[in-house]
Amino acid sequence: MISHHHGKHSIRFSNPPIIQAWSSVAGKKEGEGPLKKHFDKVILDSFFNQKSWEQAESKMQELALQILLNKSNLDIADVGLVLSGDLLNQCISSSASLSNKGIPHVGLYGACSTMAESLMLGAMIVNGGYFNHVAAITSSHFASSERQFRFPLDYGGQRPPTSQWTVTGSGGIMLCNHGSGPKIVSSTVGTVVDRGITDANNMGAAMAPAAFSTICTHLSDFNMCIDDFDYIVTGDLGELGVKALIELARQKNIDLERKILDCGLEIFDRTTQDVHCGGSGCGCSALVLCSSLLEKINAGKLKRILFCGTGALLSPTSVQQGLSIPGICHAVAIEGAT
Amino acid sequence: MISHHHGKHSIRFSNPPIIQAWSSVAGKKEGEGPLKKHFDKVILDSFFNQKSWEQAESKMQELALQILLNKSNLDIADVGLVLSGDLLNQCISSSASLSNKGIPHVGLYGACSTMAESLMLGAMIVNGGYFNHVAAITSSHFASSERQFRFPLDYGGQRPPTSQWTVTGSGGIMLCNHGSGPKIVSSTVGTVVDRGITDANNMGAAMAPAAFSTICTHLSDFNMCIDDFDYIVTGDLGELGVKALIELARQKNIDLERKILDCGLEIFDRTTQDVHCGGSGCGCSALVLCSSLLEKINAGKLKRILFCGTGALLSPTSVQQGLSIPGICHAVAIEGAT
Repeated sequence: MISHHHGKHSIRFSNPPIIQAWSSVAGKKEGEGPLKKHFDKVILDSFFNQKSWEQAESKMQELALQILLNKSNLDIADVGLVLSGDLLNQCISSSASLSNKGIPHVGLYGACSTMAESLMLGAMIVNGGYFNHVAAITSSHFASSERQFRFPLDYGGQRPPTSQWTVTGSGGIMLCNHGSGPKIVSSTVGTVVDRGITDANNMGAAMAPAAFSTICTHLSDFNMCIDDFDYIVTGDLGELGVKALIELARQKNIDLERKILDCGLEIFDRTTQDVHCGGSGCGCSALVLCSSLLEKINAGKLKRILFCGTGALLSPTSVQQGLSIPGICHAVAIEGAT
Repeated sequence: MISHHHGKHSIRFSNPPIIQAWSSVAGKKEGEGPLKKHFDKVILDSFFNQKSWEQAESKMQELALQILLNKSNLDIADVGLVLSGDLLNQCISSSASLSNKGIPHVGLYGACSTMAESLMLGAMIVNGGYFNHVAAITSSHFASSERQFRFPLDYGGQRPPTSQWTVTGSGGIMLCNHGSGPKIVSSTVGTVVDRGITDANNMGAAMAPAAFSTICTHLSDFNMCIDDFDYIVTGDLGELGVKALIELARQKNIDLERKILDCGLEIFDRTTQDVHCGGSGCGCSALVLCSSLLEKINAGKLKRILFCGTGALLSPTSVQQGLSIPGICHAVAIEGAT
């Protein structure tokens, strides 16, 4: 039997899965932001030649997988399975993107934590020896999300100052059981944390307690401190969520501010791009990880990060029913090749 | 290194995870059906003392987990993680049921294949040595599903003859790395198969090709034939889906009819319960597996079944856009204790 170090909620991988390749397909606005030079592809048309935004999002996942295969020099038949999910009802853009491709598919729902969730499960599957190559993919699309979660764009609803801008784009990662590259060394499975936030336009605040819980669990399970990481990367807390997280940490005498890098604050230039509190959506942390972050880790500029995917587990129905918003956060520790 | 990889899409577990306990919480109609004596609990009130059907469904998952813990003689802190998902938008009933319980949660979306999907991943996680106890849970609710996928019940829409009745209920399974009981010996990850069915009231036909594909892959990956199983159990194809599956098999000279047991045909008495083509929903295959089927396996009346969870990966949006319905089927082989 292999033996993995166990905290209560954490796993250390005995044979750390390698990130063999990563891909990023970004929307127009994302392609005008600070990370523009780092994306594999920027799609200028929000419909991406499809009839609907949902299909456009699906097409972005298809392209992210294709780029991933090209970069890994793999055929689709070489991939053991694709772990993927998205924000759309019934995760339709993920399943549609794999339709009739003959590739095994495991569908996930973790809201904006999906990139971390799929990496965590993918690492378990590769490290467990079940499949040699596993792809982790996710996406979001501003227009399909706004219509589903808030208002149709045509309605012209005003966005409150606490809101975040759903990222249009898809990111993918190919995990492999051998080779060189950044590796996933450990992971912490998140718990559902609900502190009573009911405002669907303030998701950062809803997710911050879950992020703090998972970060603390990871550090405690491995007897580490925040200085063991170059960055604690949070999914998409945005300005208010990051403030809430830093305050939660301060109450426990942890100075998290100097270590936090929030993907929601990285993806857009908030001074010129009018996104209020920052970016959000499954595509947000996926695009940031699958562009500049993995590049820096691969180039040796970052040695170790804790990638904390955060998700707000609301639905339009639960919001209409006045229910509070549960949050979740899954963490994976990624190290550079040594 | 352990080596599990068998066929291209299949895994044989080197240390087959044990099904330590199972639980079933059924709705009123299900509790009046042929399996009534086998359920742990029948809930007569469709609201289950909650304010909405969505919350009632969530409460059913909570109860299924509680019964599972009682039967396994485990505390919630002993459980490594809960794998769960459901049909509701953003899988809200699954995440809400675990809110603030402090238990690690991995959210899945596999439509009505969720019970099989969660068992498959759970078996990988337990067999991989990551956690000793993993719970796999799912649910569906007739009223929350009808409102979301078709019409509000108050509208009184007529159900076409091809339709199936979404099961109200929740089923759960506790997987464990030691002990005695039925065990999961192997699994096949499904691929997304779309043969162009666009009628959301004929989901059996949409899922049958995916079921046939996964059954063939499992048999071929392990060099087995259908006679190696007491039953090939399909999730919820219903009358038309089963007919379509049998016909697909006949074209390949396989006489599947004598081996098929469809959960959609087992859960209700179709002569008296007015459910048209049978049952459906994540709760359908979960309730059938977590009652009479596991009882029979545990009692030695069945030696080996192939449990094939089938899912129709449609969304109301994709249906409104006229898109066809992709299907998926994940299979787990379950054997009695030997």
